[in-house]
Amino acid sequence: MKQIESIKEFGGWLNRYQHASACCRCSMTFSVYLPPRAAKEQVPVVYWLSGLTCTDDNVRSKAGAQRYASELGIALVMPDTSPRGDDVADEHDRYDLGKGAGFYVNATQQPWAANYQMYDYVTKELPELIEAELPVIPGLKSITGHSMGGHGALICALREKGAYRSVSAFAPICHPSVCGWGEGCFGAYLGNDPEAWQAYDATALIKAGAAEIPLFIDQGTSDEFLADQLYPQDLEAACRKTDFPLTLRMQEGYDHSYHFIATFIGEHLVYHAKALCK
Amino acid sequence: MKQIESIKEFGGWLNRYQHASACCRCSMTFSVYLPPRAAKEQVPVVYWLSGLTCTDDNVRSKAGAQRYASELGIALVMPDTSPRGDDVADEHDRYDLGKGAGFYVNATQQPWAANYQMYDYVTKELPELIEAELPVIPGLKSITGHSMGGHGALICALREKGAYRSVSAFAPICHPSVCGWGEGCFGAYLGNDPEAWQAYDATALIKAGAAEIPLFIDQGTSDEFLADQLYPQDLEAACRKTDFPLTLRMQEGYDHSYHFIATFIGEHLVYHAKALCK
Repeated sequence: MKQIESIKEFGGWLNRYQHASACCRCSMTFSVYLPPRAAKEQVPVVYWLSGLTCTDDNVRSKAGAQRYASELGIALVMPDTSPRGDDVADEHDRYDLGKGAGFYVNATQQPWAANYQMYDYVTKELPELIEAELPVIPGLKSITGHSMGGHGALICALREKGAYRSVSAFAPICHPSVCGWGEGCFGAYLGNDPEAWQAYDATALIKAGAAEIPLFIDQGTSDEFLADQLYPQDLEAACRKTDFPLTLRMQEGYDHSYHFIATFIGEHLVYHAKALCK
Repeated sequence: MKQIESIKEFGGWLNRYQHASACCRCSMTFSVYLPPRAAKEQVPVVYWLSGLTCTDDNVRSKAGAQRYASELGIALVMPDTSPRGDDVADEHDRYDLGKGAGFYVNATQQPWAANYQMYDYVTKELPELIEAELPVIPGLKSITGHSMGGHGALICALREKGAYRSVSAFAPICHPSVCGWGEGCFGAYLGNDPEAWQAYDATALIKAGAAEIPLFIDQGTSDEFLADQLYPQDLEAACRKTDFPLTLRMQEGYDHSYHFIATFIGEHLVYHAKALCK
């Protein structure tokens, strides 16, 4: 991997890297924040998965996460939301399919399957690369994200038993099989049989008996996508039915933006630091 | 003035307003962060002046200032960097002249003079409007900013004796009369006689005997504009010669970006809160 940018922030370094992804068969870009502590010793990692239309840049510019990561001594890894490049399939007229909308699944349908292998990318290829190349403690990682990336964080933690010390999400797409965003992407990437979608649907994974890991979710009550796309009530019902540990905080008056994320990112990173540093 | 957006953040409200500016003879947009404390009582205000190419949105999205303003109980007012609209003069091919580059001066030369009256706008019209319409303590204000806006903050505080309780700046253009950005804008807005520029040049104002107010400046040593545009050494020399109080912190390794601002904005807001709340 090649470092293409390095910006000093909160005493640490916000770096950007490019590498040839074997999973996605294209050049991928991601950002990493290394806290001051990483200059002296290996640190734990929190993976952040971003939402529709984002690149690695949104969260690093808008969430205010680096301040907390600096104080807590944890690295942040911020991948892109899809494969990129002129040779990668896309729907140019849509923000919610194709580039910027990888949905953290391994596509099985063409033309998407050629590059859209984001699940393997974020759960396997990227952590292996990070652990080989950067001063992080191998295997000591947690995961969080926003919206489509909140969905991604939940399914990674629910599917990869023991891989993550903790998981949290901001306004996640909790039941993608039944919302417009999820139906559009799952139909394109996974095919028309909704049975194939269940393996990437947090609510379905809970219903199917996923291994236990506490879920910590913040959701704004004034989120413009709450009613039509996010369905936290479905996840909550599935958790109640299966006695699955869920902390769902409905945050009065907050919307879907990075201003909502900025408000609560500190509490999430403290939550992850406790799990990672104990 | 009309409220056009309201986003909850850190328990307070990030609002955006539009109004017909008498100074600038156009519709102007600005943002205000009202901390939770403003729901119960009037609060002091910190004005933030942004740099070249910015609108009111950059700082509110990228600086992480609202967290501190919430904790400290101070409002943030974030104006635009120039007049706007189809009828406003511009140089479409340049980022450093015209829209987005008002330089916080009152233009005297056409076509700029018709709208580019940003000095009066930020020092008079906007504070009057804010104090008439929002829950702020009249007259209790401080000012800060970045780059072109750091220059703006310095000249406002140096010219408006007693108007601001404190002033600070991030990587300000300290001596605009002798740098490319300043020469370009001052020449266009104020005419070709550099004598007319001195009234809007922090280094010149110090040399000319401005009323004393401590200057608090952070400047990154890896700032890509440090050598050619910012000239903190000229301001420092002028302050030393006149015994003017200056704290200039050269911050090792930091650049010109909002990542630099985010790192130090907390210290600046604490500095202003101390001056505003004593």
